[in-house]
Amino acid sequence: MSLVQPRTLPGALELLPHEQIAFQGLLDTIRTTYERFGYLPIETPVMELAQVLLTKEGGETERQVYFAQSTGDREAGREPELALRFDLTVPLARYVAQYEGQLSFPFRRYQIQRVYRGERAQRGRFREFYQCDIDIVGQDSLPVRYDAELPAVIHQLFTELDFGGFMIEINNRKLLRGFLADLGIAEGEQQKLVLREVDKLDKRGPDWLRQTLLERFDLAAAAVEKLLAFVGTRSQSYADAAEILDRLAAEHQHELLGQGVTELREVLARVADFGVPDSHLRLNFAIARGLDYYTGTVYETVLSEHPEIGSVCSGGRYDDLASNYTRSRLPGVGLSIGATRLFWQLRELGLYRQSGSTVQVLAALMDEDLLSHSLALASRLREAGVNVQTQLEAAKLGRQLKYADRAGIRFVLIVGSDELSRGVVTVKDLRAQTQFEVTPEALAGELLQRLAAALPSAPAEPAR
Amino acid sequence: MSLVQPRTLPGALELLPHEQIAFQGLLDTIRTTYERFGYLPIETPVMELAQVLLTKEGGETERQVYFAQSTGDREAGREPELALRFDLTVPLARYVAQYEGQLSFPFRRYQIQRVYRGERAQRGRFREFYQCDIDIVGQDSLPVRYDAELPAVIHQLFTELDFGGFMIEINNRKLLRGFLADLGIAEGEQQKLVLREVDKLDKRGPDWLRQTLLERFDLAAAAVEKLLAFVGTRSQSYADAAEILDRLAAEHQHELLGQGVTELREVLARVADFGVPDSHLRLNFAIARGLDYYTGTVYETVLSEHPEIGSVCSGGRYDDLASNYTRSRLPGVGLSIGATRLFWQLRELGLYRQSGSTVQVLAALMDEDLLSHSLALASRLREAGVNVQTQLEAAKLGRQLKYADRAGIRFVLIVGSDELSRGVVTVKDLRAQTQFEVTPEALAGELLQRLAAALPSAPAEPAR
Repeated sequence: MSLVQPRTLPGALELLPHEQIAFQGLLDTIRTTYERFGYLPIETPVMELAQVLLTKEGGETERQVYFAQSTGDREAGREPELALRFDLTVPLARYVAQYEGQLSFPFRRYQIQRVYRGERAQRGRFREFYQCDIDIVGQDSLPVRYDAELPAVIHQLFTELDFGGFMIEINNRKLLRGFLADLGIAEGEQQKLVLREVDKLDKRGPDWLRQTLLERFDLAAAAVEKLLAFVGTRSQSYADAAEILDRLAAEHQHELLGQGVTELREVLARVADFGVPDSHLRLNFAIARGLDYYTGTVYETVLSEHPEIGSVCSGGRYDDLASNYTRSRLPGVGLSIGATRLFWQLRELGLYRQSGSTVQVLAALMDEDLLSHSLALASRLREAGVNVQTQLEAAKLGRQLKYADRAGIRFVLIVGSDELSRGVVTVKDLRAQTQFEVTPEALAGELLQRLAAALPSAPAEPAR
Repeated sequence: MSLVQPRTLPGALELLPHEQIAFQGLLDTIRTTYERFGYLPIETPVMELAQVLLTKEGGETERQVYFAQSTGDREAGREPELALRFDLTVPLARYVAQYEGQLSFPFRRYQIQRVYRGERAQRGRFREFYQCDIDIVGQDSLPVRYDAELPAVIHQLFTELDFGGFMIEINNRKLLRGFLADLGIAEGEQQKLVLREVDKLDKRGPDWLRQTLLERFDLAAAAVEKLLAFVGTRSQSYADAAEILDRLAAEHQHELLGQGVTELREVLARVADFGVPDSHLRLNFAIARGLDYYTGTVYETVLSEHPEIGSVCSGGRYDDLASNYTRSRLPGVGLSIGATRLFWQLRELGLYRQSGSTVQVLAALMDEDLLSHSLALASRLREAGVNVQTQLEAAKLGRQLKYADRAGIRFVLIVGSDELSRGVVTVKDLRAQTQFEVTPEALAGELLQRLAAALPSAPAEPAR
């Protein structure tokens, strides 16, 4: 029979088991942190009805959508009725509109699922990737103080993830729009074009931006300088941020800018209450995000030692989540982490090394006659909550130790006939590079103690 | 603007948050148990290349496949190159063939992901559903003793899940084939047709089966009676099972039947070593599973109080996993749980009631002036590992208590100005229906202690 070459579609990140364990650890930490703040889980189908998923206008992302069709529908020559979700926001909108009467508001939800985009195949671009989203959705209204909770989630999450320093960058779209209007840059299309260039500031620098703004837009040199100074603003502390906002409010009378200042003041006051230190959060007036969707607070998050990755966690405030599906007004605030891309980037940077296996113990076997005994020991350990892989075929100890070491398994149980006659088990601790003997009765307790001691702190049980 | 009705495709099970929490609990228990036995996680892309996923013959399941195509490819008039996986076995075969050189064998893997089938829309039939699979894949060979590990996993899992009694039913395809051949029923198509009827024994009864076998197949009455007696065999204990096998071996000389007896003897001896009691595992010679795929041991699992659900966990031994993709011989043994259908069935039976929220504490707010204080308390609890939802808008206590009760949140923190001045926090324990006061310093310890006490036993940390 001729063979088919086993391969995956380009743009899918498929991992080897030890990498999958590390990636699963990332997702678990994200989920645990989201739950820590009271966000509730939902999952939505990968396939949505195309007429529900896709709006008539169809943004850029929608043009990358994958359509799906069953064999039967294809053979009948029908148009595809299904499409794969391209983000988790449109499914959230559909979900909240659909179950509005059964949800409690403000509705805090998290969702960790894969999304699909027909991107051009390119290194680091994914056609299938995980998004890890949280949103707080209000009914009719959602006070701006809610915008302060999300930075607290980000702060706790990236502290736990321990990828080194990070900075939550915060801005407000009303302040941005008011400032631009005050400079004579008209709301709408013109602001959009200017902000698209401003977005490149961090990559191309202020000189490039100055030249672009002067050449492409009909702006006076003084206005360009003002804009450059403005988008270059970064606060050094919460006190500094308050001063910056006071100064802005005093210098500009534009109403929208005033609203933006008021909102940012409240958010900054509250993030401090939420326990976010100003070493990890600052004003950054260059942050714009997608112009159409966000209407107030916007966030980005940058890893201090790896700014080249760009924002690893972004989001913001929106006025109305589900106007395509319901006349209810559903304002909200949310953020998203692209976990697949983040993992890939960190792996590229060598920050994700093999982090140890989910398997904690290998029950080695050197003598077929001792299999029953070894299986009984393993059962006892599993009942105590230890993850044990049993070796079911006898092999040389050296080979089994080498396997455990490569696989990142910490403990190897050795029961030879000598140990059996003396009523003990020998345990090799490959991480501590030590070896000890213990009775079968004391084995589970000893291993659990050593495993617990290896943790930096004792995290609480995940809630059910 | 005209509204689009928010709805999902028929055949997708979408859950409300409190149901999602219960479902997630089911998936978590499955994952934890799979990891307890040393199975390693993998995930594969939802979309596979159609030419890789689909074989030339195309079984029944393959005819239900969903094809996927990006907007660009559609517009270009191309044929779809992608298809959504319809199970986790074909992706495993592709994965193992693709990364064979980087995996250690025997390769124990678990995979918990959704699969897609273009089923006819029908109550209880799903077009998108979770499968939770484990497999042990050997290189060149995999001794039959590995077949004894999977019942141990099932036993531990269904003990943990606590859906009441369950029975693991075990059989061997060689024994079945040998027995049928001995009766004069030819290998291949004829056996397949007979077994398809035998499979209906539990539903339609022995009288129906007798009549069907006599009418449809050219079988002597004596042969039909022998077959009926055979497929009606159920062992009462491991000793009984051994006797049944001894008797079979003595009565029949067919080589394949002999091999089946030898394999079952070994599996039964080893499942006892693995700690599976014979109250939970028995021989059942009516178990056949899909005729083409499995070649040796086959398993099904039935919930004793809900036999109408049918098998909730099935699998078996196969000779060669990935012959479409590689010339390496990769025998294995595996099993699968259809978690979406299982959850749906249990919910229909009323066995999944609201099981409590992931949120452990609601920090109530009756007075806007105390928001900072409440946020600081919540931060302290979260640092200690408690899941806290903060109320950011002041409301009447009664309303907040009612919300917490409905949402399944156990503890409500109450900080009024009275509590603040006395330096204490009042905690309502809605489950215990008690109320107590505690200092902010002692709060986290007190809550963690009460949360831990609610657990039946202290499970170990999930490994990372």
